[in-house]
This record gives sequence, C-alpha cells and structure tokens, in this order.
Amino acid sequence: MGGDRAPDEVVAGARRAADEHGIEVVLVGRPEALPDTGGLAVLPASEVIAMGDDPGSSVRRKKDASMIRAAEAVRDGKAAAMFSAGNTGAAMASALLRMGRIKGVSRPAVATPLPIPNTTPTVLLDAGANAECQASWLVQFAQMGSAYARVRYGLDEPRVGLLSIGEESSKGTTLVKETHGLLAEVGGIRFIGNVEGRDLLTDDVDVVVTDGFSGNVALKSLEGALRCLSDAVEATLPAEAWATVAPVLEALDPEAYGGAMLLGVEGVCLIGHGASTATAVANGIAVAAELVRIDLLAALRNAVAA
Amino acid sequence: MGGDRAPDEVVAGARRAADEHGIEVVLVGRPEALPDTGGLAVLPASEVIAMGDDPGSSVRRKKDASMIRAAEAVRDGKAAAMFSAGNTGAAMASALLRMGRIKGVSRPAVATPLPIPNTTPTVLLDAGANAECQASWLVQFAQMGSAYARVRYGLDEPRVGLLSIGEESSKGTTLVKETHGLLAEVGGIRFIGNVEGRDLLTDDVDVVVTDGFSGNVALKSLEGALRCLSDAVEATLPAEAWATVAPVLEALDPEAYGGAMLLGVEGVCLIGHGASTATAVANGIAVAAELVRIDLLAALRNAVAA
Repeated sequence: MGGDRAPDEVVAGARRAADEHGIEVVLVGRPEALPDTGGLAVLPASEVIAMGDDPGSSVRRKKDASMIRAAEAVRDGKAAAMFSAGNTGAAMASALLRMGRIKGVSRPAVATPLPIPNTTPTVLLDAGANAECQASWLVQFAQMGSAYARVRYGLDEPRVGLLSIGEESSKGTTLVKETHGLLAEVGGIRFIGNVEGRDLLTDDVDVVVTDGFSGNVALKSLEGALRCLSDAVEATLPAEAWATVAPVLEALDPEAYGGAMLLGVEGVCLIGHGASTATAVANGIAVAAELVRIDLLAALRNAVAA
Repeated sequence: MGGDRAPDEVVAGARRAADEHGIEVVLVGRPEALPDTGGLAVLPASEVIAMGDDPGSSVRRKKDASMIRAAEAVRDGKAAAMFSAGNTGAAMASALLRMGRIKGVSRPAVATPLPIPNTTPTVLLDAGANAECQASWLVQFAQMGSAYARVRYGLDEPRVGLLSIGEESSKGTTLVKETHGLLAEVGGIRFIGNVEGRDLLTDDVDVVVTDGFSGNVALKSLEGALRCLSDAVEATLPAEAWATVAPVLEALDPEAYGGAMLLGVEGVCLIGHGASTATAVANGIAVAAELVRIDLLAALRNAVAA
C-alpha cells in the first residue's frame, strides 16, 4: 500500500517479479483496494501509513498497517524478506520493532548503494537512521557494510573507507578520529583509511562508513547535484541529444536505482523509492530474493560476531 | 607563490586585474622567482608554503612565507585585502593568526558560494574550518553568511537555512536542534528553518549554515557528483554536443567558480582554487577589491554585534 504509485504499480511489479523471476510474492494490504493480483496471495492489512506520516508515531498507532504486517510475516517465517516503496522511516521502524536486531548489533544502519558508471556501486552507510553515533556503532557499520558489499556485489575484500574531511587520520571530528583508531585495529575488514565526499562516486572505495547525519547530507547533496546538473544539461542540449543522455543520468540516481537496505535487523528489509514504477518494484523484489538466496543474514551475523 | 600554476599564472592574473579593473595589486613572494610583473610592486617573502604542507605547522615554521607576509600587509594597512591560490588551510591560518578575529566572533568560518544556473549562488558555511561546533558559533555563521550574501549578491533579506536531515525542527543532531531554537529567536536574519542536502543547488535558500564537518562533506560530495556526472555526459555525447555542454557544467563547479572566503577575521581573505588560471586569479582579485569597496567588514562587524 506504500509509495506514490501504490497499489497499481506495486502490484504490477509484484506480478512481474513472480512471472519473470519465479519469485513467490505475497502482497500485504487491503484486498478490496488492490487491482487484479494475477493469483498472488494477499495477506490482509487494514491500515496504511502515508508517505508524509511521522514514522515513530504512525508505527506505534497503526498496528494493522501493511508494512507492520509485512515485517511480522518475516518475523514469523511466513515471508523470507520484505520490500516496500512506502514511507522509508516507517518501513525501517516496522522492521526494527517487529524483526528485532541481529544479536550483538547496537544499531541498525541504512545502507544505500550509490551507482557509478562501469563499476560496482559504492555502499554508503549510515544513510540516515542514526543522526548521532558512537565509534563502536560505526565499527559495526563497517563490518556489516563490508559483508553486504561482499555478498551482494561479489567483492572478495571490499575496500572500506571512513568519511572525513581530509585523508590524514588526524582530520575530522572526535568521533571520526576515535573510529579511525578502532577500524585500524579491527580484523575481518579491509580498512583503507579516511575518504572524502568527492570519493563517493569513484572506483577508489567500495564501502563508506559515517554517522547517519553526515551520510544523509552526503546522499541528499549527491541527489541534488544530479538534479541540478541534469536540468542544466537538458536546458542546453537539443532534444535528440538529451534523449541519449537522460537514461545515463537516470541510472546514476541513487534514489531511483538501489533500494535502501536496513542492515542489522533479523530479516531482509529493502526499501525502494517512493515513486517506484512496476519495473523498480520488480527489481527490488528480485534483489530482496537474491539477498535471501545468498544468505545475507548469515554473513551479517558472522561479520558482527567476528 | 601559492597554487599549482604559480607564479606565472598568478602574476599574469594580477597584471590583468591591474590593467582591466584598475586595481592596485601588490605581489608577495620571491622577487627573483617572478616573471615580468609589468611594474607591479613586489613585497619580498623568502619562503613558500607548498600545496601539500600541513597548514598548522608550516604557518608556525615559515614566518617569511608569502601568505603570512600578505596577511601581515592587510593587518598593517599596506594592503586592503589578500588573495591566494595556495594551500587553503595555510591561507586561512595565516589570516586568522595575523589579522585576528572581528570583535565578538567566536570562530571564523569558510564561506563557499555554490553556483546555480540563472540565479545567485547559495552561500555554504562553514565549509571546513571548524570540524566541531557549538550552537552559538552556528548562530554567528548565520549572521555573517547573511551579511555576506547581502553585500556580495545584493539580496535584501537573504533566506538562511540550517542544514539537517529533515525539514521538521525535531530532525537532526542535538547541535542542529539546539541551533534551530536559537536561530528562531535571534533577530536580524531571515531564518527559514531546516534545509536538506538536496536544497543546496536550488533557488529555495540563499545561505546554508552547518558545522565544518558536514559542510565539507556536502561541498566535496557536490564536487564529486559534478565530476562523475560530467564524465558520464562526456562519454555519451558526440564531441560537438559535448562542446556546448562543457562550459555550462564547468560554471557549476564550486571549486573553479567561487573563491572561498574566511568570514570573521579582521580583513578580507579570499582563497581561489589551487589550479587557478590567470582569468580566475584576476576574477578573485576583483572580487576581493569589490568586497573592500562595499565594506564587507563593516557589515560583518554589525552582523555579529546585533
């Protein structure tokens, strides 16, 4: 029920995921509000959390909301993963409250893949779940982000960078300097030191770790730059030249591309862009299924237990 | 002596500023290392702080460096402003140590104009001088940034936004929430509330206030996005179409465009891109002269005294 184009595009995407990828999809929502589901099962949920609702209070109040019921289905083993194109904060809160945390995880983090031409995306985390962080949490983000990049993108030893404002270990906030020291000591990850905002969209780093405030600022700045630059290019080029560039720039939009993943909860929870089309929904469901198949959760559990 | 193309391009730019804008330019550096100065005065300085030198220690050690002598010339009234294309941190430290702070200013901040098509730039501060900040400093950044946007871009009442990760006053870190409360109360500025990274390159805000860590992350993320996207557009377009787009995209690069300004010291200190060409140097000198002519310092003193 969540997302700007729900339920029509969401159901269409679910049907495509079933038809084209052979994935067994269970829809969660108001049965009477849904278009033809093509025979997909429907788990009834009478309430809807809107895109503009406050995540915390709506998740507490609307106990029969579709995303809460979806998270419960994962918790109860009725589903292997959840995908939502709805309110990001509410989907995260539903997953955290209903699935619970992986043992040992202090705080789950939002991991957002940043697409880059001709190479694997850079995984940025935390992209906004925890505005204020402790150094030990950032170490877990590094461990979880590394495990995610390894299983999702097939990287043997993902390069993990710490977001700062200079390459030297002496640069940055107290939090960054303390985290730098811990990451240099911890085993099981390939820590390459500090990186800067300008490194995010390069092939020089695979996982970038930061607190949820700076991570969200970086992510939104990238998105804003992409929008501004796309508009400037469109205004300059003749229509036929723009038509060749537009899809290239669209493919670089982190919002449209990836699907944010909540790392650290006891289940796979993928959140797509609010404006997800049927194609984006089908892709998101396919990614979620793939993360189950390759057992991301086991990799995350191992990573934080190491 | 500072900058990747010094001294040739710097001297050429200084000569152009004198010839085309009628500005009386004093060069500071090693007389024997300079090309033909076209009759410009030279203030001798025997040492050079290199682009890669550590700002703090080099400023303490190299007391006869060109940027130190330039800052002293401003302090002593022998020059009205300084411009450097050299090591940013060292230029800032030189200005702070030799010119001192404006009375009442807790911490100077780096203000960087972010160019936007068809409108005035957004002034972002602090873009990197103070990694960790107190709320009262951010209030002064808002006051100084507002005065800067007013006198430099002729805006009557610049709209001042506080960088956060959501529009609501409840969003962000403890620092952001505390600053939000103070900015809502303080007079003399037009505070429009929280803004996000995606608002930086829009016409919705004129001045964006944040700590030097988040500000630098945002600035570098924008620069990295512009570089990545420009490369992607160039790789897609035929050469003649790219030739029409390239100058439009170059004009959006904050590094190439603006010149960072250290707000809060007792003098005008403008720092250009390390790769500044003669044209960029001439423009930077002209901006510095204009900031003296319109008496930016008086506006800053009034702003923090209000």
